[in-house]
Amino acid sequence: MTRAQDVSLPGNRPHGYATEGGAAWRVSALKEVSYDVMVQPQLLDPANPALARAVKSGAAPVRQLIVIDTTVASLYGEQLTAYLAGHDVEFHLCVIDAHESVKVMDTVFEVVDAMDAVGVPRRHAPVLAMGGGVLTDIVGLAASLYRRATPYIRIPTTLIGMIDAGIGSKTGVNFREHKNRLGAYHPSSLTLIDPGFLTTLDARHLRNGLAEILKIALIKDAELFDLLAAHGAGLVEQRMQLGEDAVGGAALTVLRRAVQGMLEELQPNLWEDHLQRLVDFGHSFSPTIEMTALPELLHGEAVCVDMALSSILAHHRGLLTAAEFDRVFDVMRDLHLPVLHPVCTPELMRGALADTVKHRDGRQHLPLPRGIGDAVFVDDVTQQEVEAALFTLGERERATQQPRLRRPVDMGV
Amino acid sequence: MTRAQDVSLPGNRPHGYATEGGAAWRVSALKEVSYDVMVQPQLLDPANPALARAVKSGAAPVRQLIVIDTTVASLYGEQLTAYLAGHDVEFHLCVIDAHESVKVMDTVFEVVDAMDAVGVPRRHAPVLAMGGGVLTDIVGLAASLYRRATPYIRIPTTLIGMIDAGIGSKTGVNFREHKNRLGAYHPSSLTLIDPGFLTTLDARHLRNGLAEILKIALIKDAELFDLLAAHGAGLVEQRMQLGEDAVGGAALTVLRRAVQGMLEELQPNLWEDHLQRLVDFGHSFSPTIEMTALPELLHGEAVCVDMALSSILAHHRGLLTAAEFDRVFDVMRDLHLPVLHPVCTPELMRGALADTVKHRDGRQHLPLPRGIGDAVFVDDVTQQEVEAALFTLGERERATQQPRLRRPVDMGV
Repeated sequence: MTRAQDVSLPGNRPHGYATEGGAAWRVSALKEVSYDVMVQPQLLDPANPALARAVKSGAAPVRQLIVIDTTVASLYGEQLTAYLAGHDVEFHLCVIDAHESVKVMDTVFEVVDAMDAVGVPRRHAPVLAMGGGVLTDIVGLAASLYRRATPYIRIPTTLIGMIDAGIGSKTGVNFREHKNRLGAYHPSSLTLIDPGFLTTLDARHLRNGLAEILKIALIKDAELFDLLAAHGAGLVEQRMQLGEDAVGGAALTVLRRAVQGMLEELQPNLWEDHLQRLVDFGHSFSPTIEMTALPELLHGEAVCVDMALSSILAHHRGLLTAAEFDRVFDVMRDLHLPVLHPVCTPELMRGALADTVKHRDGRQHLPLPRGIGDAVFVDDVTQQEVEAALFTLGERERATQQPRLRRPVDMGV
Repeated sequence: MTRAQDVSLPGNRPHGYATEGGAAWRVSALKEVSYDVMVQPQLLDPANPALARAVKSGAAPVRQLIVIDTTVASLYGEQLTAYLAGHDVEFHLCVIDAHESVKVMDTVFEVVDAMDAVGVPRRHAPVLAMGGGVLTDIVGLAASLYRRATPYIRIPTTLIGMIDAGIGSKTGVNFREHKNRLGAYHPSSLTLIDPGFLTTLDARHLRNGLAEILKIALIKDAELFDLLAAHGAGLVEQRMQLGEDAVGGAALTVLRRAVQGMLEELQPNLWEDHLQRLVDFGHSFSPTIEMTALPELLHGEAVCVDMALSSILAHHRGLLTAAEFDRVFDVMRDLHLPVLHPVCTPELMRGALADTVKHRDGRQHLPLPRGIGDAVFVDDVTQQEVEAALFTLGERERATQQPRLRRPVDMGV
């Protein structure tokens, strides 16, 4: 997966402050990282060898560690167990009740303990992470830290995992109320996407994923936006499943374009050397909004509140016409995504932006939509503008009865 | 420091289990890592601008976070403070009593809290880590985890830090009695080596560093070995300081060759993609020995016990003649390094090797000296051989009165 290239050592190269007894070396090396993302329907069908191939190493058989979310285990545990038994894969299940509130280092340690208990070797027995974005983020960080990097495989079971959290290189956990403050860049060697898992995902979590798809659409893919505008509500209703009708036909295209768009943005900047990232759209104010409202808002919901606010900022700056702006809000409404939350006070927004500026090394680098399917970065948004945007958002929400506060629990299928 | 290269995304490439609705992507990227290691005598001399240059960013002035070991702070805190004040560097000191027993995640979190308190930005204000290998390993891991990587600078104040722990890419902490079980590859952007700090290092810790230098000598540098054989005791006595006499002349050469040899080994394998590492000589049994004997053995002392054992294994296999073998043990004796410890039972050695085999992904990859200044890898050492080597070592130790157990505390200068 990674490879260091031989680079000659320049040897003693005195530089800087020259003194008797000085000496200097520069160490340079290249790391090559590559990983696969595959759409694999019917992943747990005994006739589909993809998963068995992925976990079986060429070397001597080892016991496979599988870290799985509690809900996923209750829904798919039996099928998974039967599949693995049928393919002669020995395994140990580590079940974790993964949600944002336990996305912390202690949960990473639980995974590390399981790795130690199973005796995971260093390279040839990737840990399997099966669950939503929180679970794969936790397992990814554990795998990254364990012996300074062991491989893992992701099977995202939520939409947000399939098109965002489970296909990038970022892993991480929250630390003392700071969203993803600790983490590592450590992509899984393979992500297997089976849209079939979405049939058991509740509507709210499906919308949560559609919020991140809407993000990709707004910043770079007008066609994807059109698909969401045309079929948003239907995609939720039919759980993004393939079918003969228009919605069923759109489902795979939406999924593919979302993954394609995301990977196009990530690949040239896998370690975030450039802090101007289009995919940060919706992620400037939302980390603070999400952590403050916890557990009321899901990640994608907080992102949508941020996108709504940012779209108004863009509109006020003339980057988005009133008509475009209305189209954006119509899609948000069709998807039943929140555009405001009571925690969004002017003071909270001020702190949120200040923290983001630290995260972007002293600059705002705020992506704003320029029309639909394009975006620009701005660095000079004032607190006054943010407050004006908040005010407009509040007015609009009162006028349109846009749902304001999602119920914290709405897990029915 | 790092740069992602644009690599074209191959787009949808179906492979694996072909199904309707399948799709696949491969994400590939290159990360370029480079870092500097400089010998910089008189680092805290107000006339030496090296340190001020290193911590001052081109951007707006920020408060610098300095994480410093308690002992180092008591010895050099005033000088450091005066230096920084003289160079108009604003800073916050975070003092940590760093030793192997607190090389754990909780101490990493202490550093993270300090980073949050100071408000360390993401890229342009490297955290300064000043202390021994334990301290720089802890700060390195904190910097690696913080916002998924922030830069840091190392000023090692121990010999082992200057030639080993402080110049590589590894960071890490112990976890549940497992040595360095959690960590990351995250070299500091710059390591500044000032041998002047060694004047206040106690003899035991100086020998601790010489053990790692002896390792480099044995596996790849016969000339370095000759210098240790000729001047070992003197180098300890004169604390590796430059001088007009033979020992003073040897000091800088020993330091330079040790750093050079280490970096030559590390650079082509910075992420340990190859698990056959010459620098693992002395590190096959020692992680378990060190953790079991904690706090009795320093790292280099445990490494020396391992090197002694491995040298006997090599001798029994005919890789090391009796004369070479005697020379190795003479240097260990001159350096007052232990060659055995009561925890080294056959059972402990069995477990130690088994754990190392996991760490080396299923193979022993055991480096053994072949003559002096060369080494080979073996994969078939038996428990019988290990026990025979232990027996010989015990016999030899009884015969030569080699010091067996170091006192845990021997901190006098």
